[in-house]
Amino acid sequence: MNTSEHRALANLLAPDIQELLKTSPHSVAAETEEIHAADLADVVEALPRESVIALLSALPANRAADVLEYLSDDLRTAVLEEMSTPQAARLVAEMTPDDRADALEELEEETYEDILSTIPRAAREETERLLAYDQDTAGGLMTTEFISVPEQTTVEDALASVRRIARAGRREAMHAIYTTDEHGRLKGVLSLRELLAAGEGAKIAEIAWEEVVSVAASADREEVVQLTSNYDLIALPVVDEAGGILGVVTVDDAMDAMVEEHTEDVQKFGGMEALDEPYLQIGFAAMMRKRVVWLVALFVGQMLTTSAMQQFQSQLTQALMLTLFIPLIISSGGNSGSQATSLIIRAMALGEVTLADWWRIARRELPLGLALGLVLGVLGVLRIVVWQQFGLWDYGAHYMLVALTVGMTLVGVVAFGSLAGSMLPFVLSRAGLDPASASAPLVATLVDVTGLTIYFSIALFLLNGILA
Amino acid sequence: MNTSEHRALANLLAPDIQELLKTSPHSVAAETEEIHAADLADVVEALPRESVIALLSALPANRAADVLEYLSDDLRTAVLEEMSTPQAARLVAEMTPDDRADALEELEEETYEDILSTIPRAAREETERLLAYDQDTAGGLMTTEFISVPEQTTVEDALASVRRIARAGRREAMHAIYTTDEHGRLKGVLSLRELLAAGEGAKIAEIAWEEVVSVAASADREEVVQLTSNYDLIALPVVDEAGGILGVVTVDDAMDAMVEEHTEDVQKFGGMEALDEPYLQIGFAAMMRKRVVWLVALFVGQMLTTSAMQQFQSQLTQALMLTLFIPLIISSGGNSGSQATSLIIRAMALGEVTLADWWRIARRELPLGLALGLVLGVLGVLRIVVWQQFGLWDYGAHYMLVALTVGMTLVGVVAFGSLAGSMLPFVLSRAGLDPASASAPLVATLVDVTGLTIYFSIALFLLNGILA
Repeated sequence: MNTSEHRALANLLAPDIQELLKTSPHSVAAETEEIHAADLADVVEALPRESVIALLSALPANRAADVLEYLSDDLRTAVLEEMSTPQAARLVAEMTPDDRADALEELEEETYEDILSTIPRAAREETERLLAYDQDTAGGLMTTEFISVPEQTTVEDALASVRRIARAGRREAMHAIYTTDEHGRLKGVLSLRELLAAGEGAKIAEIAWEEVVSVAASADREEVVQLTSNYDLIALPVVDEAGGILGVVTVDDAMDAMVEEHTEDVQKFGGMEALDEPYLQIGFAAMMRKRVVWLVALFVGQMLTTSAMQQFQSQLTQALMLTLFIPLIISSGGNSGSQATSLIIRAMALGEVTLADWWRIARRELPLGLALGLVLGVLGVLRIVVWQQFGLWDYGAHYMLVALTVGMTLVGVVAFGSLAGSMLPFVLSRAGLDPASASAPLVATLVDVTGLTIYFSIALFLLNGILA
Repeated sequence: MNTSEHRALANLLAPDIQELLKTSPHSVAAETEEIHAADLADVVEALPRESVIALLSALPANRAADVLEYLSDDLRTAVLEEMSTPQAARLVAEMTPDDRADALEELEEETYEDILSTIPRAAREETERLLAYDQDTAGGLMTTEFISVPEQTTVEDALASVRRIARAGRREAMHAIYTTDEHGRLKGVLSLRELLAAGEGAKIAEIAWEEVVSVAASADREEVVQLTSNYDLIALPVVDEAGGILGVVTVDDAMDAMVEEHTEDVQKFGGMEALDEPYLQIGFAAMMRKRVVWLVALFVGQMLTTSAMQQFQSQLTQALMLTLFIPLIISSGGNSGSQATSLIIRAMALGEVTLADWWRIARRELPLGLALGLVLGVLGVLRIVVWQQFGLWDYGAHYMLVALTVGMTLVGVVAFGSLAGSMLPFVLSRAGLDPASASAPLVATLVDVTGLTIYFSIALFLLNGILA
């Protein structure tokens, strides 16, 4: 089943569940028991608001909390705002610590305070601790429920405590078990399978791996994603400055962060600020704000093209036909720049390319740009010569010079586009900005102004005094 | 440590390991034992080729196989090609089935046959079965080592068999345990923690979840990524048509597939074919091929701008100043189109928007585009009026009409850009093409031609006969 089929299915199921809520609310929990929480969340999204609250109230608290975790931020926030405080607190208390913090963060100040003061004290303190971290850091992504044992523990004792925790129905991430030294610092890691495979009587320290990949609580979520992906981790431990383990980021949260990072990158590359919400949920005014800023900035930058053309107006008057090729020329530069930029920002995001590689890249992109420009230059010359020869348009007696001007310009503009497009992410990154802000429209704007200058300079050199 | 620090560290370690290989090759395995295979792979990438083979030969086969799995495709292929067949077969036999198939697929026909005929028969048959699946499908991503038990098994027996497999040092993905019915069809799933938590004497069928998310072997890797991410899975079972379980895709492979999908999407959006290799590893000729095709196609499309301008040459002769604003106008259309396209292709990739939503999107983008165009239109008018009033440039006696022409054109072009940019992914998708091919340059090209036509038509209407 793909996503649209899932959505269609949710739309089908929603009326049944509404009916059930009316006729026999007590059977809802049992009837929906085998539905995956993610699917039930899809059904919830398709229900009218009053049925959503009725459904969540009809489910056991831990099940309702599961469903809440899969809801869109908007709906989850709306539901928690609308519920009574005890009702909301009952569900929130059952959520995993990281999701609980995320859910509470979105609420109105007042609702937030009310709910927080109603949930059990331990959960409250933990939530407050998690909320102190920036949402886009390792600390903001981590959950505090994980299993760690002192390294002197025996395999039997460790296994018994894992079983005890699993039986208690608690939600600890337990694919990996961490070991700590006498000062409580993260020392080693082993998987549940390694624990199961270990011989009786062994100490955990003997079977744990001592090279543990970990991350600082303040690290950017991009680093979390990269480490999880590079080391094929199921969970990444988050440590404080002394090396004490604070929590773990589980792979599903790393994957969600990766999806968000990528959405931001694509939107930035498209030439706008990243949206914080899904396309269909963001309002008109918010969408306008996200788009107008860059659009205006690029527009102001593009005004330089008008100024550039004004400088060359006397030539333009002499050789109006030069204007015919302006869009063709500047767009070719923009396109080659867009290609180069997309390659470099992605290679940077993957860590394949770092700041120090700029010179290596420049030496690659310049000859490549010249070769690509040569291809387009030849095509441009052919276009003019063929049109002239077949009588499709008259570029005048000196059409070969016009063709040469256009051809040479294309070589220069495409080469400049490749070079500028590949260097812009380095410049931004060096200036402490996000290299992903090097959007296709920004590169195009940069290249347009230069492209016109190249064009008119070549024309001035080749055609001066010749064209009337 | 971030990626560039890791790379720096690998460069530091490489000379030490080279030294060790010379002085005391037998101690290499023990000295590097605690280094994560991913880090050791980084060190290997920094070594000269002859040391790579020496190092891999000095490690135990299962450790060398681990390192091989983390190497870049290029180096892994080169190493396997260079080794003797028995040497290569020894390592390949130790790889997980999915990685083994991936590694062999890259080799020359002859080396491939040699190695395949040397590894144990069971591994050979399994590899051939896996290689029958397209690399970009669920079948191509799955591993065949997983744990499944008949649903009538007791908890004790299941746990005992899990421990047996773990102790045998085999590499089965065992975060999830699958249950099968009497016909061998996938019936349920439970996690290792649920197995550990289960009371003694229970049958597996009583504790397993019956709603198992699974995928067909022929499903696209995009679907694998979406299911793994939506359901927060650690492993996704792959089934045949009868519902029999063929293998599982583990979350680390789904994450790798996601990274590759992202890279392809960004490169396509930049206006080129997706590369199959990292930026720094692809050759000049291959890079040229990936870029020149789209660049030429866009160039040919852009030639229509020249044709459009030729149609209006008589007006251009009358009102040369109109040409001054051409780059400004067409780029504004391209930029708004690029924004809209990036939003829609991403929303489609996330499943937020489906084909059926096109009308909803169009009704959103048109007013938004008009509002954005109005902002730019007002700025455009101001630009002309201010320059005129302050004597920075003389747009003639009818400069207000010129300003109005530019302003109205901007409204039309930006609105058209938003609409065309948002609809293009739907058109491509409807035509059975990848909506991600709706690149920023393609949208810009589309909008440029229309933008010029809008501009000159408005000019013809407002300025005809007025400007000399």
